[in-house]
Amino acid sequence: MSTNLMHTDLERYALELAQGARAAARELALASTEAKNAWLRQLASSLRRCAAEVVAANQLDLDAAAGYGPTAAQVDRLRLDAKRIDVMAGGIEEVVALADPVGEVMESTRRPNGLAIEKVRVPLGVVFFIYESRPNVTTDAAALCVKSGNAVILRGGKEAAHTNQAVHGVIQQSLRECRLPDAAVQLVAVADHSLINHLLHLDEYINLAIPRGGEALIRRVAAEARVPVMKHYQGICHVYVHADADPGMAHAIVLNAKCQRPGVCNAAESLLVDRAIAGGFLPPMLASLEQAGVEIRGCPETRRLVPSVAPATDQDYATEYLDLKISVRVVDGLDQAVEHIGRFGSAHTDAIVTRNEAAARDFTRRVDSAAVMVNASTRFNDGGEFGLGAEIGISTDKYHARGPCGLRELTSYKYIVRGDGQVRA
Amino acid sequence: MSTNLMHTDLERYALELAQGARAAARELALASTEAKNAWLRQLASSLRRCAAEVVAANQLDLDAAAGYGPTAAQVDRLRLDAKRIDVMAGGIEEVVALADPVGEVMESTRRPNGLAIEKVRVPLGVVFFIYESRPNVTTDAAALCVKSGNAVILRGGKEAAHTNQAVHGVIQQSLRECRLPDAAVQLVAVADHSLINHLLHLDEYINLAIPRGGEALIRRVAAEARVPVMKHYQGICHVYVHADADPGMAHAIVLNAKCQRPGVCNAAESLLVDRAIAGGFLPPMLASLEQAGVEIRGCPETRRLVPSVAPATDQDYATEYLDLKISVRVVDGLDQAVEHIGRFGSAHTDAIVTRNEAAARDFTRRVDSAAVMVNASTRFNDGGEFGLGAEIGISTDKYHARGPCGLRELTSYKYIVRGDGQVRA
Repeated sequence: MSTNLMHTDLERYALELAQGARAAARELALASTEAKNAWLRQLASSLRRCAAEVVAANQLDLDAAAGYGPTAAQVDRLRLDAKRIDVMAGGIEEVVALADPVGEVMESTRRPNGLAIEKVRVPLGVVFFIYESRPNVTTDAAALCVKSGNAVILRGGKEAAHTNQAVHGVIQQSLRECRLPDAAVQLVAVADHSLINHLLHLDEYINLAIPRGGEALIRRVAAEARVPVMKHYQGICHVYVHADADPGMAHAIVLNAKCQRPGVCNAAESLLVDRAIAGGFLPPMLASLEQAGVEIRGCPETRRLVPSVAPATDQDYATEYLDLKISVRVVDGLDQAVEHIGRFGSAHTDAIVTRNEAAARDFTRRVDSAAVMVNASTRFNDGGEFGLGAEIGISTDKYHARGPCGLRELTSYKYIVRGDGQVRA
Repeated sequence: MSTNLMHTDLERYALELAQGARAAARELALASTEAKNAWLRQLASSLRRCAAEVVAANQLDLDAAAGYGPTAAQVDRLRLDAKRIDVMAGGIEEVVALADPVGEVMESTRRPNGLAIEKVRVPLGVVFFIYESRPNVTTDAAALCVKSGNAVILRGGKEAAHTNQAVHGVIQQSLRECRLPDAAVQLVAVADHSLINHLLHLDEYINLAIPRGGEALIRRVAAEARVPVMKHYQGICHVYVHADADPGMAHAIVLNAKCQRPGVCNAAESLLVDRAIAGGFLPPMLASLEQAGVEIRGCPETRRLVPSVAPATDQDYATEYLDLKISVRVVDGLDQAVEHIGRFGSAHTDAIVTRNEAAARDFTRRVDSAAVMVNASTRFNDGGEFGLGAEIGISTDKYHARGPCGLRELTSYKYIVRGDGQVRA
C-alpha cells in the first residue's frame, strides 16, 4: 500500500514538473531574443557573484564523494572552483552571441495558385535532460535550451546534487529577475529512478529526452522512453590510413585522434591500415602511440610487424575504450576498411587519410556515419569545431538531428501559409 | 509450448524481413537517380500491363468484403479497375520527376582552420509502413521510399490482402528487371498483430515506422514502437473567422474546408467566429453548411442566432468527425480563439480569415500547429499542394519532420569534413 502511494506521489510529481515545463515552454516560445539574451547575461554575472556559495555546496559533494573512494579523474570532473565557475559563466555568455533560431524562415515558396508558404523554426517545447557528474553541464544545458525557446527539466547525477542545487538556485533567481517563467529550468529534486521513468512516459508534455553519460544510462533511457531521445550509445571511431596516405599526416592524425583527449566520444578507438603501406607505417606509428602511453591490441599482421603488440579480438574492435588503448588492423584496401567500419563501428565519426581523391569520395559515400572525415582528426566532430557554437550532445540517430546538436537541432518548424481566399478545387 | 514456438517463428520472420530490408537499404543508399527512376518507369508500365491480374485479385478482396457487409464508402476505397490502376501508374511516374534528395548538399561551410564541412542528405534506411485498405497506397509508399533511397516493409490491411499481393508481385518483378534488390520492397505476408509488434521493436534494423489509418491503429503503433514513428493522431482543424474577415472569403473557405472532402485529416472540424460579426456571418454560413448536408453543433450563442443548431459539448470540440459534421463556437476575439485551438486542437492545420495584418501575424505566431493558414482553406496542408510532390503522410510531431512529409522528410544527413591534415589543439 505504501509503495503504491509512493508510486502515485512520484507520478504526481512527474506530472507537475512536466505540466509546469509545458506552460513555461508556451511563454518561452514567444520570448524575444533580447529577453533571452538579457537572462543569459544576468545568469553569467549572478553565477560569478555567487561563486563562493556554489563552491561551498560543491565541497559537500566532494566530501560525500570521499566516502566512496573516487578516482582522481572523478574528483576532477566534480570539483568546481572560482576559476571553473568563471569558465561556466563565460560559456553562458558565448550563447548570447549565437543566432536565435526561433522564427528563422528556413524556406519560402509561392505556389502557382498564389499561396505564400513559409517554413519557420519553432522550439521543440520541453526537453528532459538527464546527465551525470560534471556540474558545468547544468548551466550549458539551461543556456542552450532557453536560448532555443525550450523549457528544460534537468536531472543531474547524485554525486553533484548539492552543486546542482546551488547552481539551479542561481538560475531560478535570474529567471525571476528577468521575468521569465521559473519553470523554464527545473531541477528534479528526487533521486528515485522511477521518477525518470515516469517523466520518460509523458509524451503529451515532453518533446525530447537527452541522456548524456555512460552507455548504460543512455540504453536505460532509450529502452524506457515514450518520448523521442536524442543520443549516441558509443563512439567507436576509426582512422583508416589508405595506401595513398601522406604518412606524416596520417601519423599526426592518429596520434591526435587517440591521445589528445582519450575519454571523449570522438576519440579514435581503432586504427585500420592498408596492407600496402603497413610495413613502413605501422612500426613508427605504434612506437609513438606506445610512447604516449597507449596500450595496443592488433591483428596477426600487426603483431608480425610489431611483435610487442597484444592480440586483438573481435571484442576489442567492438569496444569503446574511452582510454589510452587502441585496436589495430591491417586491411586489404578500402572495401575491407568500409566493411570493418560497418560491422564494428557506431556510426559516430570515421576518418580516412589519403591523397587519392577517388578513394576519399568512395569512403565518404559508403561510410554512413554522422561525421566522415577526410585528412582530419576524428576529434573535430564537435559543435564548437563545426561552428554551431555550444552543443547539447552528439547524435548518431537518423531521425531529426545527426552529429553535433546545437541550438537549431533543438528546434522544429511549422508552415505558415498566406493566401487571399484560396480554396481547394 | 506451441504458442512459444509460434512466437519464436514470428520473431524469426520479423528479423528476416528487417535484416533483408537493411541489406537492401545499404544498396539502395548508393543507387543512382537514373537507376531509381528507371525502376519507377518500369513499375508504372508493368502495372498497366498487369492491370487485369490486379483487378482479378482485387475482386477476391471485394468478394471477401461482401461477406461482412461493408459500407459503400468501404467498397469504393477498396475497388480497383483499369482506370484506377492507370491513375496509380501515373502517380508512380510523377515521382520520377521529383528531385532525388540523396546526396543533396544542404549546407557547406569552411572553418577558420581550413576544414571544409558539408551537410549531405542520406536516406533514413529502412521504413516500416503500416496502412489500411486503399491499395494505391502500396505503390505510392514503395515509389517514395525507394526514390529516397530507403527500403520499405509494407504491412497493408487484411481487406486488401489479395490486391496488395498482386501489386507487390509486380513491384518485385520490376525490381528484379531493374537489378535493384528484391528486398527493397517487402510485403508482410502474415496478418498476426504480434508480428507488427516484433518489427516495431527492431530499432537496430528499422529506422522509422509510418502508420497510416485510423487513430486506433496509430496509437497502437506509437505505444508499442521502439523505433521512431512519423505520425499524426488526429486532424481537428479549425477555421477562425476574425472580426475583420472578408465575410464572402470566410464563407467560401469554411465551406471548402468542411465539405470539399470531409473524410480527410485536413478537413475542418470546428468553426470559431468572433462575437462582433457572428450575428451577420453565422446565419447565412450555417444555412449554406446545412444545405451541403452538414450536421451542425453549436455553442449557446450560435444556437441563439440559429435555433435549429444542436448543442455542442466539449466532447464535440475534441472530436475529429471525418464526416459532414461541424462544431461551431462564438469567441470573444483572437485570445479566446487561440486558447480554444490550444485546448481542443490537434496541432494539425488551423486557419484564420482576416484582413487585419496584425491579427494574422499574432495568430500565426501563437498557434503552434504543423500548418497555420491565413485566408486559405485548411485543405491545402498537403504534400502536392505545398509543392513537395507526393507525400508519405502528414506529421504533427515536432521531432524530425512536421506537416506534409515527402521525399526529403524520408532522409537524414551526414557531415563530410575535408581537411589537409588538421589535428585538434
